[in-house]
Amino acid sequence: LAAIGDITAKKEKLAIGLMSGTSCDGLDIALIRINGFGRNTRFQLIAASSYAYDSELQNFLRRFPHNPDSHPQAVSQLNFYLAFRWAEMLDCFLNENKFKNTEIDFIGSHGHTVWHQPQPQPFLGREVCSTLQLGDPSALANLSGIPVAGDFRVADVSLGGQGAPLIPFFDWIYFSSMNKNIVAVNIGGISNLTFIPANGDFLTVTAFDCGPGNMLIDLAARHYFRQPFDADGSAASSGKFNTAFFDFLCDSDLFITSLPPKSCGREQYGSPFFEKIISASNRLQLSAQDVLHTLTAYTAHAIFENYSLFISGLQKADLIAVGGGGAGNKFLMHLLQEKFQPVKVLPLSHLGLDENFKEAIGFAVLANETFHGQPSNLPQVTGARRPAVLGKICLP
Amino acid sequence: LAAIGDITAKKEKLAIGLMSGTSCDGLDIALIRINGFGRNTRFQLIAASSYAYDSELQNFLRRFPHNPDSHPQAVSQLNFYLAFRWAEMLDCFLNENKFKNTEIDFIGSHGHTVWHQPQPQPFLGREVCSTLQLGDPSALANLSGIPVAGDFRVADVSLGGQGAPLIPFFDWIYFSSMNKNIVAVNIGGISNLTFIPANGDFLTVTAFDCGPGNMLIDLAARHYFRQPFDADGSAASSGKFNTAFFDFLCDSDLFITSLPPKSCGREQYGSPFFEKIISASNRLQLSAQDVLHTLTAYTAHAIFENYSLFISGLQKADLIAVGGGGAGNKFLMHLLQEKFQPVKVLPLSHLGLDENFKEAIGFAVLANETFHGQPSNLPQVTGARRPAVLGKICLP
Repeated sequence: LAAIGDITAKKEKLAIGLMSGTSCDGLDIALIRINGFGRNTRFQLIAASSYAYDSELQNFLRRFPHNPDSHPQAVSQLNFYLAFRWAEMLDCFLNENKFKNTEIDFIGSHGHTVWHQPQPQPFLGREVCSTLQLGDPSALANLSGIPVAGDFRVADVSLGGQGAPLIPFFDWIYFSSMNKNIVAVNIGGISNLTFIPANGDFLTVTAFDCGPGNMLIDLAARHYFRQPFDADGSAASSGKFNTAFFDFLCDSDLFITSLPPKSCGREQYGSPFFEKIISASNRLQLSAQDVLHTLTAYTAHAIFENYSLFISGLQKADLIAVGGGGAGNKFLMHLLQEKFQPVKVLPLSHLGLDENFKEAIGFAVLANETFHGQPSNLPQVTGARRPAVLGKICLP
Repeated sequence: LAAIGDITAKKEKLAIGLMSGTSCDGLDIALIRINGFGRNTRFQLIAASSYAYDSELQNFLRRFPHNPDSHPQAVSQLNFYLAFRWAEMLDCFLNENKFKNTEIDFIGSHGHTVWHQPQPQPFLGREVCSTLQLGDPSALANLSGIPVAGDFRVADVSLGGQGAPLIPFFDWIYFSSMNKNIVAVNIGGISNLTFIPANGDFLTVTAFDCGPGNMLIDLAARHYFRQPFDADGSAASSGKFNTAFFDFLCDSDLFITSLPPKSCGREQYGSPFFEKIISASNRLQLSAQDVLHTLTAYTAHAIFENYSLFISGLQKADLIAVGGGGAGNKFLMHLLQEKFQPVKVLPLSHLGLDENFKEAIGFAVLANETFHGQPSNLPQVTGARRPAVLGKICLP
């Protein structure tokens, strides 16, 4: 395949990563310069931006998985609609940064998850698991004129894996050179953690989703203040911790303490779950600030509890490296630091990586593996039967 | 990409084509030996089989696009379910023919269409067109252990094309060596035709969907006789032509006479359309045989009318080559021969190609183009803005 041969033959490639996360707030775009592959990967961030979705699209995406109007036509249309929107955002991004599409070697596109169900459920008389990301990579390749690798989760789920988290491969590439036991936490809509041992041994890298990231906090900020998120955690920090509400959260949520491998999404912590816990907070007559405080504490708890249950018994962390939008929530970071004391909790920016774009960068790095024909899931993390080359390659 | 380089470096490749058509009756599998690409393609059919879907799955697939229960979860699950079922059928096929999966170089998989809407419709404030095939190619690659190219229609639709028909590229490869003006008709659930000029000029190849193929006949056979189809057209041939019913069909169906480029599917001729015409046949108190006769005549009319309106004014056919399941309907073939007189109407088997597996073979040939990085849509046929490399490449 001439085009792919050309890409992989180049020593240095320009790659773009696209991430449209479970928070449904927009598309993250990161442009990197990348050399090599696997543990020999070296990369450098050139530019990154977020492109917000308008509130109509945000609401549409949040409701989509459980919306009774989400029929096959809507799935088909949304799959193309997102590719069109992303191609336009990409165009803006390239213009703003003075690059042409012909200079970009490839795109890694995560896609927007509308269903993620690694646990088998009965379907036509069988037990079937599946995952579904929209924003078609073939449409995107043709609209952007750039080769795309996308839909990374499918291969792993088809091999019995959770299809998530996938960023641990990137964490391993990035952190294994630091020679420390590192817990890399990512706080997007969902929170997850990766443990990278000081010796960099690929097979002892561990990772899993912890539970809610910003999702519950953002839903509450929207519910009470019509804000997309609780900036700096200021509303939460002005409230009080409520034990009854916290206990209700723990009792309503079996995910946090469930054994890895595990992954979750909007299915667990989206509108149905949120409506249930808001009813509880109303019964308890809590102020908005107290709800936000307790939800933020619960989010920190989800992360620390998973570390305590599944990591610290085996190896102690030397450093907690926090990425994702949650790293910008000062109150959440403060709570995490209290819990992990005396281990330092640092945002990724203190370690040379832009915390807001870790996932976008990560999927550019995963696409690089795909174009090189290399597997990039961690079977010990996802539970897949074997390593797999992730993603679908689409040429313009 | 080592794996793709290995495939395209081989002079002779073993390729499998998979087709799950709009008739929803099963999966066609064809194994070919193939050399070269583009007009230099040479291939030979080694084995082919159909694997029937059980009636539960058939009914499920037929109802799926308009079923109110078809939510994102069901789309996600069906996408994986079909990949699992196809991987099993493929396994049977390879065993029966004494091949190992490691001997097969690649698969071309059309996927099962659940929505095809090349005409834009309003969606979130935009005009959006789309197409959606299920039976995930990445899942299939990992389950079968064979590289897959799949989802061929997406690229063309994203470039403003109809995404169909795609088999004309194959028709051009196959028929252009015969030095005749050939009309290649395929009668699956939907009927379509390709005109290949005697001089083999790629840019004057014309093709489009004509209208119903076996779909209405099959629905009627099921409705009246609980048979999957009207074997040999025997029920139809024992009935009479009803002019009022025929006129009702013509008046109910704007697709047949609409201008190319055009494509259609179960959206036009599925259950809602069928229920409407069965009501009409009840009002007219027609026998089952008369309904089948008239529907078969209407199917022949759809094909001939399209030839008359859009081909014969420009060039006269020397030969009509009929493929697809409809080529086995003797009564339909008889009606077609009457209409096209004095031009010969022949089943593909008389021209060295197995008519039941033309599409499966065709998608193996299209996948070969994809792995070679070559475009395989015909923009003059689909209306796409430019040629595109069709499909998504998925490595096991």
